Amino acid sequence: MTVKGNETLYRAIRDAVMEEIKAHNIELVQEKDQFIPVSVSARHIHLEQKHADFLFGKGYTFTKHRDISQPGQYSCVEQVTIKGPKSKMDRIRVVAPLRKQTQIEISRTDAIKLGVNPPVRHSGDLKGSAPLTVIGPKGKIELEEGCIIADRHIHMSPADASRYGVENHQKVKIEVDGEKGGMMYGVTVRISDRYALDMHIDTDDANAFGIKGQEYLKLIK
Amino acid sequence: MTVKGNETLYRAIRDAVMEEIKAHNIELVQEKDQFIPVSVSARHIHLEQKHADFLFGKGYTFTKHRDISQPGQYSCVEQVTIKGPKSKMDRIRVVAPLRKQTQIEISRTDAIKLGVNPPVRHSGDLKGSAPLTVIGPKGKIELEEGCIIADRHIHMSPADASRYGVENHQKVKIEVDGEKGGMMYGVTVRISDRYALDMHIDTDDANAFGIKGQEYLKLIK
Repeated sequence: MTVKGNETLYRAIRDAVMEEIKAHNIELVQEKDQFIPVSVSARHIHLEQKHADFLFGKGYTFTKHRDISQPGQYSCVEQVTIKGPKSKMDRIRVVAPLRKQTQIEISRTDAIKLGVNPPVRHSGDLKGSAPLTVIGPKGKIELEEGCIIADRHIHMSPADASRYGVENHQKVKIEVDGEKGGMMYGVTVRISDRYALDMHIDTDDANAFGIKGQEYLKLIK
Repeated sequence: MTVKGNETLYRAIRDAVMEEIKAHNIELVQEKDQFIPVSVSARHIHLEQKHADFLFGKGYTFTKHRDISQPGQYSCVEQVTIKGPKSKMDRIRVVAPLRKQTQIEISRTDAIKLGVNPPVRHSGDLKGSAPLTVIGPKGKIELEEGCIIADRHIHMSPADASRYGVENHQKVKIEVDGEKGGMMYGVTVRISDRYALDMHIDTDDANAFGIKGQEYLKLIK
């Protein structure tokens, strides 16, 4: 690629061209294709002990319906009803094990139907999130907060993170093929040795991008 | 930018660098920011004369509810019920004027709820689209086809098209800011002197990307 006898000139021009490239916002597209499996989270609820007792009765034992992608977590046979100012939705599945604070994850579509306005949040970040009523077989709870739209995120182990070259809390982009393809921005990487590699999106993202779950999507840093 | 006395060498190196750029998929990002207003289409129905007669009675005159973005088109006070194998949805607004063929536009979220599997299509491209039952105040119709998920598209006039530098049926990308930001690929440009500048997306795209309507989104060619 160099021109014999003119290395200095070659470098001067090469650098000038690269300066131009940067000045005009030309992007270097690095072709390290990196793919991540995706799961679609339907609306669900995580319960704290006190609320589990109140909704299902003290000492109630939940029954596993199905394992979900993260080790030790599973959806339960048990379901609740959630109710907002505009409407209610039945058959909201409980996801176990119990958590420190009750958390309801819904989509924007659900939120509009219920008449609530939850923020887009990381799991567990519930301060100032939306109020909602939860109705179980043994009781009804008026939650002052706890309803969120879960952010787009990717669970991975430290070994995965090293392989993909990403850090905890890093925001990445995810590209989707197909007739409703596109890119999701602001996807948060979450690293823990308790995590299995999986991207989680809600049903709005799934339906907008034509994703059914179990696809592999391209990670772009 | 040229180097005096060495034009030939300069051009040789410039061309070699540009070859490298192309070989490594480096994209030229042209910074002509181009923004397009967006509207969100909720589920609705366009009726053909025969079906309007059947559902509302022969010679029925529809009443305007609200103008929509395209000149001469308006949503009506009149509503129908649509019914699929799994459930039904009430309050589906009729959009006038009448069309050559009845067309129902729903989101993937709606489709899952109804239990139908409509294709993603341009308006009017209904061959082999999904069947659906339509119920009006005077009758019920079992449509063999007519239900689609409308593709993402942008209406514009020839003058707009010239300004944005796009052609009829061209596929463009649209970028969205915000905490649920990203890019929509495969957005179809539709040019007609009857069109007003407006991008149309369904409620799934709106809710996935945090779009409420009336925002300006960035067109990327």
